[in-house]
Amino acid sequence: MKVAGFDIGGANTDLAVIDFDEEGNIKEIKTDFEYLPMWSQNDKLGVTLIDLIENICPVEEIDAVGISMTAELVDAFETKTEGVLDIANTCEKFFDVPVAYIGLNGVLSLEDLIKNPLDVAAANWKATSQIIAEIEKNCIFVDTGSTTTDIIPIKNGEECAKGRTDFERSATGELVYTGTLRTNLTSFVDSIPINDGNYRVASELFAITADVYNVLDLIKDEDYVCATCDGEGKTKEESARRISRVVCADLDILSIDEIVNVADFIHQAQIKQIASGIKEVSEREGLNTVVVTGLGKDILCAPAAKSLDLKVKSMGDYYTDEECVVAPAIGTALMMKNYI
Amino acid sequence: MKVAGFDIGGANTDLAVIDFDEEGNIKEIKTDFEYLPMWSQNDKLGVTLIDLIENICPVEEIDAVGISMTAELVDAFETKTEGVLDIANTCEKFFDVPVAYIGLNGVLSLEDLIKNPLDVAAANWKATSQIIAEIEKNCIFVDTGSTTTDIIPIKNGEECAKGRTDFERSATGELVYTGTLRTNLTSFVDSIPINDGNYRVASELFAITADVYNVLDLIKDEDYVCATCDGEGKTKEESARRISRVVCADLDILSIDEIVNVADFIHQAQIKQIASGIKEVSEREGLNTVVVTGLGKDILCAPAAKSLDLKVKSMGDYYTDEECVVAPAIGTALMMKNYI
Repeated sequence: MKVAGFDIGGANTDLAVIDFDEEGNIKEIKTDFEYLPMWSQNDKLGVTLIDLIENICPVEEIDAVGISMTAELVDAFETKTEGVLDIANTCEKFFDVPVAYIGLNGVLSLEDLIKNPLDVAAANWKATSQIIAEIEKNCIFVDTGSTTTDIIPIKNGEECAKGRTDFERSATGELVYTGTLRTNLTSFVDSIPINDGNYRVASELFAITADVYNVLDLIKDEDYVCATCDGEGKTKEESARRISRVVCADLDILSIDEIVNVADFIHQAQIKQIASGIKEVSEREGLNTVVVTGLGKDILCAPAAKSLDLKVKSMGDYYTDEECVVAPAIGTALMMKNYI
Repeated sequence: MKVAGFDIGGANTDLAVIDFDEEGNIKEIKTDFEYLPMWSQNDKLGVTLIDLIENICPVEEIDAVGISMTAELVDAFETKTEGVLDIANTCEKFFDVPVAYIGLNGVLSLEDLIKNPLDVAAANWKATSQIIAEIEKNCIFVDTGSTTTDIIPIKNGEECAKGRTDFERSATGELVYTGTLRTNLTSFVDSIPINDGNYRVASELFAITADVYNVLDLIKDEDYVCATCDGEGKTKEESARRISRVVCADLDILSIDEIVNVADFIHQAQIKQIASGIKEVSEREGLNTVVVTGLGKDILCAPAAKSLDLKVKSMGDYYTDEECVVAPAIGTALMMKNYI
């Protein structure tokens, strides 16, 4: 039996299709994702879901579809409730097999979702926690994706996040809204040392973290899936030019070597930002082991945990890198399998 | 004789037309401005310049045109040099009367500009300093516009900014890239206290300072000239909804009263940000009087200066509010008058 798990984010829609044998064990996992900016193109969601599956296997072979989401926060929707209902409506329209939704307290049918749409809002970390709990029964998992970082405590194999909604988790250290690709550099850097000076940053959307890790060679070319700020290309020089603008400079003013130093500084600043959330959760919950996952697991999560002298494990020791990138989608498929 | 002064910014193009009597004294100042996002619509610059003049007086009555600019930084241009040359080229094409450009060391002809385009890049504060020096010969002027804040020391009637380019000034406290309208809240606020919690912000472009001052009733409806982040309207409720998203909330989660408290906190944070630049310049230069101007003069510049126990004067005591908003354009017209 084949179960599809989708994680519909604001910027990326991730998919995992898991093939189970007759005893219910995993035979094979296939994954894919597509950049779909839901703030401007949410009308393309249904077609994108089908296309993603077809890239992996014929849609007719899918027996059930699980959905988790965070895209309800995008500003195309007036409220999260409106967003959740709109997204669920699209999912129901495009699939004939059973569809259900990951909520904060388990899997919901459409009927239950309609009764309490907010239970489904930004609950994708709940799905991730299912996978991580099998790796480590007492830990904090840290999942840095393209846009956000989930920092979730697990005790005795059960997630026990103090905040439940993303609003609440932004106050408990369990959600740090910073990521490997889409994050505006000015959101976590106020000034940048260059040579002997300390340069305040320009509060525009001139460059994103994808440019920083592109210049530093810490992501692969194919990982830079989101749009560039200036509509130009994704070469290292083009990324360096975008970063130069963050201090009101250009590549006539700053050399590539200087930009690499700037990028190093920004990288360290983002590690500190993520560490601040891990520290809060670790101290409150008395947990000293971190399991890292997501696109930023090696370049952001692990260094952040190590800076706090915590023990670090990686989902990458049990799953492929491609699987780690779509961890919530895999968790969603697993929860859906247990639900049907 | 009538002289037009333009200040071509990245987001706004400002105009002042000054009518001089035969002795060269100011008879009348007329002003206007238009929101022109140069990152996407720089091809409309020429037409906008003509339209702006025609709103005030027939273009045939204009005897000379002075230009200052900061728009060369927008990411439609690869380098500042390319931006300056492109903008100057447009200005030359659209006017038959003498045109010249404000540079860091005075007014430049097109010929001189071509020899050293960077002298003209982000030099509009040079024009403002001409006006302020007549109000106070030893002071720091603080001009908070829609997007940026210039903090320029004046001694014995001459500006003596330590940084000359905007890159340099971002390291000397003389440019704080924060403004009254267009500034992404996440660029200067990391977390926001609400009730008993402290909420980390979402690093998207969900809301801008115009939303904050709209909710707090500190700007007029007609001052909110830039685009909204979500493409929706400019009512207080719509601004409040945008602000709620900055902490991953919506108006189901936060009440309007709570959003007003959030806006108050953000307002104070921006005052502190501007004060940090004023403090740096004041201590380095030993200047204790601040002259405030720009759209943010009363709500941002004056409170920032007062928080440092500095003496505050306002350009508003000598000019109308409308004139203060386009101070660099007025200074540009005055410098152009002296040049021809």
